[in-house]
Amino acid sequence: MLFQPRSIRHCKACGAAVRYVVPADDNRERAVCSACGLVHYENPLNVVGTVPVWGDQVLLCRRNIEPRYGLWTLPAGFLELGETTADGAIRETVEEAGAHIELEGLYTLLNVVRVGQVHLFYRARLLDTVFAPGPESIEVQLFDEASVPWQTLAFRTVRETLLHYFADRRRGRFEVHAADIS
Amino acid sequence: MLFQPRSIRHCKACGAAVRYVVPADDNRERAVCSACGLVHYENPLNVVGTVPVWGDQVLLCRRNIEPRYGLWTLPAGFLELGETTADGAIRETVEEAGAHIELEGLYTLLNVVRVGQVHLFYRARLLDTVFAPGPESIEVQLFDEASVPWQTLAFRTVRETLLHYFADRRRGRFEVHAADIS
Repeated sequence: MLFQPRSIRHCKACGAAVRYVVPADDNRERAVCSACGLVHYENPLNVVGTVPVWGDQVLLCRRNIEPRYGLWTLPAGFLELGETTADGAIRETVEEAGAHIELEGLYTLLNVVRVGQVHLFYRARLLDTVFAPGPESIEVQLFDEASVPWQTLAFRTVRETLLHYFADRRRGRFEVHAADIS
Repeated sequence: MLFQPRSIRHCKACGAAVRYVVPADDNRERAVCSACGLVHYENPLNVVGTVPVWGDQVLLCRRNIEPRYGLWTLPAGFLELGETTADGAIRETVEEAGAHIELEGLYTLLNVVRVGQVHLFYRARLLDTVFAPGPESIEVQLFDEASVPWQTLAFRTVRETLLHYFADRRRGRFEVHAADIS
């Protein structure tokens, strides 16, 4: 199923109405301005986050916002202009969990085509156990594998990343995992 | 240096003028509609491509488009809605090089913050030596390490990816590389 939001109705440059048509030198429909001809591109967004680790535990946040209010997630959010994927992953971990971390490398790349997103998680080492929920979290808590709230995780990309993490941890070797979430 | 294009002048929903202000629950300036209040987000784009390999050679394309017209690149382009990063990398390789490939896994993740892009390259195995330039390429050619046109490569992300490729090839082990292009 193709993700086509078609959310653009007016030109960002001149404000006139757009039409979704295939531009002459292109092969898919774009919002093209009926007045000035500007072509508007819509592309997937990156969500960046971390797996913050303390001993055999990982830090999860319970969501204080929609979607998935009240469910548990790894700290993550949309990558912003002006930052690297690593910068963004650290920022989200600070904003949502108030945690102090050191990144340990890219860990998962998960395509969520249905919603037009690419999720990138980094492994991270918690530097201490000082953390606190930010505005977007209800609570923040450390969990070992057995106590992870597997039934109330917010997103499949979080589940996938945690499953890889504990499996890699058991075999004593971490590698980058790429997968698609259908 | 923060990448702030501020390219939005009118609301995509209603066409009224926007102003760049920090929304109440946010921490950075966004284009906010002065009439309907819609907040417009601008985020980094993903560029996806491949390192197509045949024996000890890699396939490069000479660009038939700006920017960097006439310089050599790995096949790559913007990730589109409706496709995974792997889908996009294969599509660009077909479009620009007319090549038949099989992906061999994610290889580099390169942040180019200055232009608001994340470049993702996959290693790929050429299935045959049938290839031909698409509309965006002047010519397509196989190069071994010594013959790569290092002085006329189009992008630093291409250079970085090729340097990693030949180094990893020499030591006989490939791993995912993440880096920032300043």
